[in-house]
Amino acid sequence: MIEQTQFTVHARHKGFHLITEEIKQSLPPLPGTGLLHLFIKHTSAALTINENADPDVQADMESIFNHLVKEREPYYEHTLEGDDDMPAHAKATLTGSSITIPITDHKLNLGIWQGIYLCEFRHHGGNRQIVATILS
Amino acid sequence: MIEQTQFTVHARHKGFHLITEEIKQSLPPLPGTGLLHLFIKHTSAALTINENADPDVQADMESIFNHLVKEREPYYEHTLEGDDDMPAHAKATLTGSSITIPITDHKLNLGIWQGIYLCEFRHHGGNRQIVATILS
Amino acid sequence: MIEQTQFTVHARHKGFHLITEEIKQSLPPLPGTGLLHLFIKHTSAALTINENADPDVQADMESIFNHLVKEREPYYEHTLEGDDDMPAHAKATLTGSSITIPITDHKLNLGIWQGIYLCEFRHHGGNRQIVATILS
Repeated sequence: MIEQTQFTVHARHKGFHLITEEIKQSLPPLPGTGLLHLFIKHTSAALTINENADPDVQADMESIFNHLVKEREPYYEHTLEGDDDMPAHAKATLTGSSITIPITDHKLNLGIWQGIYLCEFRHHGGNRQIVATILS
Repeated sequence: MIEQTQFTVHARHKGFHLITEEIKQSLPPLPGTGLLHLFIKHTSAALTINENADPDVQADMESIFNHLVKEREPYYEHTLEGDDDMPAHAKATLTGSSITIPITDHKLNLGIWQGIYLCEFRHHGGNRQIVATILS
Repeated sequence: MIEQTQFTVHARHKGFHLITEEIKQSLPPLPGTGLLHLFIKHTSAALTINENADPDVQADMESIFNHLVKEREPYYEHTLEGDDDMPAHAKATLTGSSITIPITDHKLNLGIWQGIYLCEFRHHGGNRQIVATILS
């Protein structure tokens, strides 16, 4: 069986944000066994799974990504949409536009330290649209 | 239901290439609701989703990835297959060998700015094989 | 149809490890056509697909990732869990916590040079739990 829903997560500032609870509240009741696929319909934001406990991890992720793909590199050609735009596209590909999570016993089968992150790579990215597809 | 097809995308020069239309033409009619999984059967090329409008984005993605994983680093041991080979393997893991896209109303439910990229990380990569699996 | 199993892969030292055979032996008989989703329930290890032939590739992948995300950067705030912890989280997001592989003719439809890697980003990561979900 396949079930699909589309929803919006509200605008956040540039950075890595834990959105596990917001995602859960946007989903219908989960099947006993299955997969949840989450897809973000944007090219300057991404989804990932990472540590859900210490907010320092989210801050350091932001620093690390800013060092990996810096703003205003002299070789950038795509500069008209702002200093944060081209780095955002590269970070989106490095992170990925979707995640897939197993569903077991009607729950997301995440590890004890795992949470879902919205990676917002733009300063004013606005609301972000997500498509959730549940396979069972 | 599950449907699967394997096809070849023609050889491209090293770089990021928008192949959304070529992919669509290689697929059977899409179901009303589902998922499309695309898998590239190679370790020096990859698939990603990124901006479909300005070709400068594709050029800058290529530059950024070349700066992230440079050729001829003194610590490389795997050098017999050419200067572009080991960086290609690392870039393939940074990008990923598959993408999964929601299908809604018989169409790929991509964001308005999203397209499918073939990331060719070798100078002479040749044709690339892709397996498409459609779940519905 | 959907089938799911959870298993442990034994502890490995920090690095990239080919685990294709260990994964295969942990799976039930595969369907004729389908998808295998593998999910690692940790935030400092990851799964990827890469070259299955030359062990030098695995050694160079480790070097490249260590250069991409270095230990003891002065801007790290999350330092209490050891020098290898924060880099491990970033590497996990760069690589990804799951892979999805097509199943064709009752076998994993990998390219001739493709194998499954466990990417262990910690020095003492211990056993790692994986959830395998098979769709058909």
